[in-house]
Amino acid sequence: MENRITAISLGVTDIAAARRFYIDGMGLTPVQEVGDEVSFFNLAPGLVLALFNGLAEDARIEQRGPGLFSIAHNVREKDQVDQILARAKAAGATITKPGTDTDWGGRSGYFADPEGHLWEIAWNPDWPIAEDGSVRIVPPKT
Amino acid sequence: MENRITAISLGVTDIAAARRFYIDGMGLTPVQEVGDEVSFFNLAPGLVLALFNGLAEDARIEQRGPGLFSIAHNVREKDQVDQILARAKAAGATITKPGTDTDWGGRSGYFADPEGHLWEIAWNPDWPIAEDGSVRIVPPKT
Repeated sequence: MENRITAISLGVTDIAAARRFYIDGMGLTPVQEVGDEVSFFNLAPGLVLALFNGLAEDARIEQRGPGLFSIAHNVREKDQVDQILARAKAAGATITKPGTDTDWGGRSGYFADPEGHLWEIAWNPDWPIAEDGSVRIVPPKT
Repeated sequence: MENRITAISLGVTDIAAARRFYIDGMGLTPVQEVGDEVSFFNLAPGLVLALFNGLAEDARIEQRGPGLFSIAHNVREKDQVDQILARAKAAGATITKPGTDTDWGGRSGYFADPEGHLWEIAWNPDWPIAEDGSVRIVPPKT
């Protein structure tokens, strides 16, 4: 596992309120928003913050107390998703979702570390990883 | 508030087990470790991950369920800590710890967003912020 975090997802149950807080209140600027599901922000220099109202379902965990989040570690090759999940399991993590092909054309799975912090291991062909390990998403072509 | 995340702290109660998982198990390489309190990792290209066994106390919150974490947003000027906390409060956040001078020579405070995600707003003279917004810590001189 390389030393890399690609994205941080904050699990929210009221995305309209979360958008009011972060965009209107705090002045952050989103780079992409998908309906009532997700808002993405580029956090300089090469990190994505997501407000995501489907995190518990996506990670296949029970919705739980305040402050649900996951850290995403994106990989360069599709095969690495399952490899890293296997390594995490061997190291003592709980696999909450095995590597699964996604409806956005990638592959993703989740583990929880020994104290319950969620990590998503993902391969996303639309989020290329730069040589320095960073990712920067661009607004989709419309 | 600039679009910037400086660090992610994972609150842990058993830092020895967390170190076994992330360092021995997952193969991450720490850049600095402080006793039984904290391990820092550089997450390319300019983001810090911390395993921190004092997060609940530092943020002045009750220890709560699994997966405690905070996102740190470091600022360039000391005065900005209190300014951003005030803005967050006005936008609907709960201030869990007002801006406070720290024993490491900086200033720091915490807020919880409307769904309980913790943010630390910090000024740390030992973690200079590069022009591109990134931070990269170096091992302390011994």
